Amino acid sequence: MRAAIFNGPRQIDVEERPDPVIAAQTDAIVRVTLGCVCGSDLWYYRGESPHALGPIGHEFIGVVTEVGSAVRAVAMGDFVVAPFTYNDGTCPHCLAGWPSNCANGGSFGNHGIDGGQGEAVRVPFADATLVKVPGSGHDDATMRSLLALSDVMCTGHHAAVSGGVKSGDTVAVVGDGAVGLCAIIATKRLGADRIIALSRNPARQAMAREFGASDIVAERGEAAAEAIMAMTDGVGVDAALECVGTNESMATAFGIARPGSMVGAIGAPHDVEVPINTVIFRNIGLRGGVAPVRRYLPELLHDVLVGRINPGRVFDFETDLEHIADAYAAMDERRAVKALIRVGGAASAEGD
Amino acid sequence: MRAAIFNGPRQIDVEERPDPVIAAQTDAIVRVTLGCVCGSDLWYYRGESPHALGPIGHEFIGVVTEVGSAVRAVAMGDFVVAPFTYNDGTCPHCLAGWPSNCANGGSFGNHGIDGGQGEAVRVPFADATLVKVPGSGHDDATMRSLLALSDVMCTGHHAAVSGGVKSGDTVAVVGDGAVGLCAIIATKRLGADRIIALSRNPARQAMAREFGASDIVAERGEAAAEAIMAMTDGVGVDAALECVGTNESMATAFGIARPGSMVGAIGAPHDVEVPINTVIFRNIGLRGGVAPVRRYLPELLHDVLVGRINPGRVFDFETDLEHIADAYAAMDERRAVKALIRVGGAASAEGD
Repeated sequence: MRAAIFNGPRQIDVEERPDPVIAAQTDAIVRVTLGCVCGSDLWYYRGESPHALGPIGHEFIGVVTEVGSAVRAVAMGDFVVAPFTYNDGTCPHCLAGWPSNCANGGSFGNHGIDGGQGEAVRVPFADATLVKVPGSGHDDATMRSLLALSDVMCTGHHAAVSGGVKSGDTVAVVGDGAVGLCAIIATKRLGADRIIALSRNPARQAMAREFGASDIVAERGEAAAEAIMAMTDGVGVDAALECVGTNESMATAFGIARPGSMVGAIGAPHDVEVPINTVIFRNIGLRGGVAPVRRYLPELLHDVLVGRINPGRVFDFETDLEHIADAYAAMDERRAVKALIRVGGAASAEGD
Repeated sequence: MRAAIFNGPRQIDVEERPDPVIAAQTDAIVRVTLGCVCGSDLWYYRGESPHALGPIGHEFIGVVTEVGSAVRAVAMGDFVVAPFTYNDGTCPHCLAGWPSNCANGGSFGNHGIDGGQGEAVRVPFADATLVKVPGSGHDDATMRSLLALSDVMCTGHHAAVSGGVKSGDTVAVVGDGAVGLCAIIATKRLGADRIIALSRNPARQAMAREFGASDIVAERGEAAAEAIMAMTDGVGVDAALECVGTNESMATAFGIARPGSMVGAIGAPHDVEVPINTVIFRNIGLRGGVAPVRRYLPELLHDVLVGRINPGRVFDFETDLEHIADAYAAMDERRAVKALIRVGGAASAEGD
């Protein structure tokens, strides 16, 4: 099969790889229909985080082509969404609702596990990991939204849930990447009244508004915090969602959260210092992390299929697997919010 | 009146001060019956935190001797508990349930406000701040527990609430000071099944067991974390309560909290670094801070009066106001968990 391979910073090549095979009887093989590039892929692409050389990509949807003898929940021909982490479904963390912290889990495109940026993937613990998509013949817009469920939409939802967003709230979303934009969708869906998006990019501002943002703040850092404090009569927001992972965005989130509220954070942290004095003296909590996608998938999948949410709109660039390096470059240069990779052809969506 | 005065590190003197007078019509004057020394008083006593020279002490119970013309909820002769922070009851933070973050509030024994370690206190916003104690003739054990409500019991409760403690949980309490011990009471009260107390002091271990601890871990740091992980089959605890405020105790709390859980933290932070990678990659949240005592007071006062909780047991040293320096020394040298100061005589409790 063909698969994208990380050969070092700014060196993404598409190479021939052995076809994946069933290694444990709980495995399934999924032929990838659509994959994509994640904002977090840019960290190693830019040489800012380490990553093993080899297969990459942790987001994909596709069709099951083979299952181990112990697999019951999915079968050959099923169209599935894969969360970006796999999980056994039986460890104490899975049972407590935290599949992304599975004691025996991991993420795709890491530690010898196939990546989603390739033609096929061996999925461990297929029963607990994969979610079958009902119906067939989904249109391209739906397919894009299904792909967004594998990470960014569920991660944005995790930011909102972690921040304790509830009906009637005023919420600020720090970060206008794909996850920040999905956090706006999630915040709107949870009933927030006022959603303040921090963005200075006109295209992203427009998408933020489309997703439900009521206010846009183009300032950054201290100036952004001052603007939002002024907009909230000096009170601060009911929840601040940190969707970047930098020290500045964390400081902004803590600077605008009202006493008693929570910062919902999902950005992979890079040199982030949590302002502990703000935590303690202003009673502002911090919660979030690697999203428990598998737990959120059923409800968000339902909302995609009924057309209530449309997170696939975050894909504003697309190419095929052979040209995936262009997708990385487009995101690196901020020409694209999020790049979709067409791997196996749309026909796969119909369960052929 | 006589009052304890901070004249610099390790220099606590009892001096003559002007009697407090009504300054705003929302004020009340409270004659102090019992006061005490807080673990947090030791920070400035030891010269580790700054504190203005002047009156000190933020915990007290006493009798109202005068009220401003706008005061309605308390009257002369009422026996009251004062939270360690005063609050106006009308600002957005008060209305949201965060009186300790009142936009117009402050704490006793700070910024020109009388301290509880003196014969009388001017209490701003008396209606919103003070809580009247029903009944009269409360015995000494009850009086001690009422005093504990002004800070440590409500602060321990805040750690437990912030950590999300619920029925059936396994909870670890890091810190065996008065607040840590009260956090055990609160955790037991909220229905935890298993309560692991970290303490290597035999007297405090005994008190922890009396309050409901089921297990004692005498190790510290890494060794404590390893012991608790082993006790929980490698899973970690459902809530870790950080009741110290040091970097080591915070690291221990994050080291033993299970994925998806919360660290409930109330220790005033001193050089604490929040392990952000643990927050994000293990989905362990952090919440807590300056306890909203005024919000918690009614329910905990009820439980004291019916004998359900007995937090006054944390006072294991007592003296009178003139000898308060001995109380500081006893706590500084860890000869005492918490020192009670008899100021106005027990008769005041009967509303005379």
